[in-house]
Amino acid sequence: MRRVAVLGVGMTKFGVSTKSQVEMFAEAALEAINTSNLKPRDIQAVYVGNVLGDFEEGQMNIAPFCSAELGLPPEVPATRVEGACASGSVAIKEAFMGVAAGFYDIVLAGGTEKATAMGTPLATRTFAMATDSRYEEFTGITFPGVFALLSHLYAREYGIPLAELKEQMAMVAVKNHRHGARNPLAQFQKEITVETVFNSIMIADPLQLYDCCPFSDGAAAVVLAAEGIAAKLVPKPVYILGIGQASAGSLFRQRGLPRLVAREAAAKKAYSMAGLSPEDVHVCELHDCFTIAEIIASEGLGLCEFGRGGEAAMKGETTYGGRVVINPSGGLKAKGHPIGATGAAQVYEIVKQLRGEAGTRQVDGARVGLTDTLGGDASTVVVTLYGI
Amino acid sequence: MRRVAVLGVGMTKFGVSTKSQVEMFAEAALEAINTSNLKPRDIQAVYVGNVLGDFEEGQMNIAPFCSAELGLPPEVPATRVEGACASGSVAIKEAFMGVAAGFYDIVLAGGTEKATAMGTPLATRTFAMATDSRYEEFTGITFPGVFALLSHLYAREYGIPLAELKEQMAMVAVKNHRHGARNPLAQFQKEITVETVFNSIMIADPLQLYDCCPFSDGAAAVVLAAEGIAAKLVPKPVYILGIGQASAGSLFRQRGLPRLVAREAAAKKAYSMAGLSPEDVHVCELHDCFTIAEIIASEGLGLCEFGRGGEAAMKGETTYGGRVVINPSGGLKAKGHPIGATGAAQVYEIVKQLRGEAGTRQVDGARVGLTDTLGGDASTVVVTLYGI
Repeated sequence: MRRVAVLGVGMTKFGVSTKSQVEMFAEAALEAINTSNLKPRDIQAVYVGNVLGDFEEGQMNIAPFCSAELGLPPEVPATRVEGACASGSVAIKEAFMGVAAGFYDIVLAGGTEKATAMGTPLATRTFAMATDSRYEEFTGITFPGVFALLSHLYAREYGIPLAELKEQMAMVAVKNHRHGARNPLAQFQKEITVETVFNSIMIADPLQLYDCCPFSDGAAAVVLAAEGIAAKLVPKPVYILGIGQASAGSLFRQRGLPRLVAREAAAKKAYSMAGLSPEDVHVCELHDCFTIAEIIASEGLGLCEFGRGGEAAMKGETTYGGRVVINPSGGLKAKGHPIGATGAAQVYEIVKQLRGEAGTRQVDGARVGLTDTLGGDASTVVVTLYGI
Repeated sequence: MRRVAVLGVGMTKFGVSTKSQVEMFAEAALEAINTSNLKPRDIQAVYVGNVLGDFEEGQMNIAPFCSAELGLPPEVPATRVEGACASGSVAIKEAFMGVAAGFYDIVLAGGTEKATAMGTPLATRTFAMATDSRYEEFTGITFPGVFALLSHLYAREYGIPLAELKEQMAMVAVKNHRHGARNPLAQFQKEITVETVFNSIMIADPLQLYDCCPFSDGAAAVVLAAEGIAAKLVPKPVYILGIGQASAGSLFRQRGLPRLVAREAAAKKAYSMAGLSPEDVHVCELHDCFTIAEIIASEGLGLCEFGRGGEAAMKGETTYGGRVVINPSGGLKAKGHPIGATGAAQVYEIVKQLRGEAGTRQVDGARVGLTDTLGGDASTVVVTLYGI
């Protein structure tokens, strides 16, 4: 198995776009290819994460159209993968395997999504199809509902009064908005306060509007290559040190909630493959689709003790100057969440951080980074470790 | 790169089912696992091809639910791939890469689809989303329309009067129904005549009803393993000798129609990897979504001369006693077409044929088999060669 590096990365601005999913993907892909010092014709395979393309703009089977938009020839296989919000990371994982195995030397992977056009209420209901259609979906639950339930479970499990947990959750939102305010590609580049969160409308008790990430339009892409090739092309290749993907069925099948078994299995695999521990991680992009999701993720990844993720946010341990900087990009919360693109956008940020190219968001001395992407109600999780 | 074998295979009856997509997948998967002399816990990764699950039963993100239905633990990554009608074959290709590379020793791959519930007219319109949404779909074209256009192009390109081509196409339907009549899992187990075709309603001139495959419910699955493991588990492993996946954009970007560049690129890769030629193929399951599609495919795969695929069908060269038996299962035409499952069902038939277990459908002396699966308007094509 060969070592695999990330060469160039590319990303559109997240928010509301008038471009199609294919056009956004091409924009991000061309940036990734150009900054790899490559031409499109050097790409040997394409993996695209996309979730709601058929509902958003009547486009399924999107991968070959992304490939054709870049002018790639028929010999280049183009594959769509879908694992709900984790789709972009699943795309990168398949690309990683193709390069590591020697099937391909240079692969393009990423994701694209146009999630704003149908409006948040309809998108929320439509996206609820990522829950189990037989056991969950018919109850009418949506993802704000899933994470609201997890909030209550979390408060009970760790004996934290709900009012206290809500403050911790609000602090996660404040932190990620503060980070996002420094990110020119973020959807929301403005700081908020705890009061902003508490004064916002209730979505699914205890989650208020500012506890929730938005649906966004956007795309992100990365170029992966075998080690020997990477070193010749770019001055600072970022290596994939470990990667783990794991799965779980409906919530009722999952034991130990609010801990999420799929995340913990994925993280264990990634750390083991990399020979690293959570203490080695300097910077992390994790799946904060809701503020409670960041708290649960920071614990499941081993970055905080169980039951102490919110406290860590309150104490500033997960921001600049803390033990590990979580979501320097602003996370899904402030950067935005174009569903299928999110995993690739996380890698975009980690690569910029490890190369020291993150500008005002730079985490000093970042040499090991982690991405964590969660799809559905923790039914698909990918955890990846990157190093320079 | 390790050699990869197919161990067990499984398939539901194709047609109209009251089961969910997940349940159908589990039925096919358990047959594949049992006939591999394995237990579900031996499976290390799962790949599921599925196309319209969100429209059919409100289920996206289906792969982890398929995995959980089999009782697999979180450590097993479950990945959905979607490449329109080629989805099942793309799933098998990803599984093949994972095993060949040594990431996994034993992988389950297949597809599932519940395409009858919405009815053919709506399914046809819905599935048209596999065309290019920017350049094709808005014209109102559906796949019967795409293949009707290809029929006219074909007649003009090779100077065949349309009436003659229609007879050749009808003969393809007659042949595949004759094959399907011997297949207890086929949706249509009845023979037809050329008159049946000519007396059926016009769908998209020149395609009549019996020139078109149905939408079906069904699932199929296969277990892949590394060579050393396979030989210990089953008496007759079937080896993947070569595999090629290729892609193309909208039809207007494709040169040389009615020849399909993605198929020819995929076939070239598969033959080259296997070190085989079309003359070596004894039995073939190819993508006869429409009768003209079989004619075009048989030529693109090198099994017939260009412009002579229909003539070959008329002369009986593509049935029992001919040079190569095409679609002994009945093909999509008679066996049925549960979109995401079709690629895996093709492998089911080829494996049974190469093992000499195809009963009344057995092709004598079959030692090399080929599967060909086409997605969209030839935007995703996978060609695979199998040998015993």
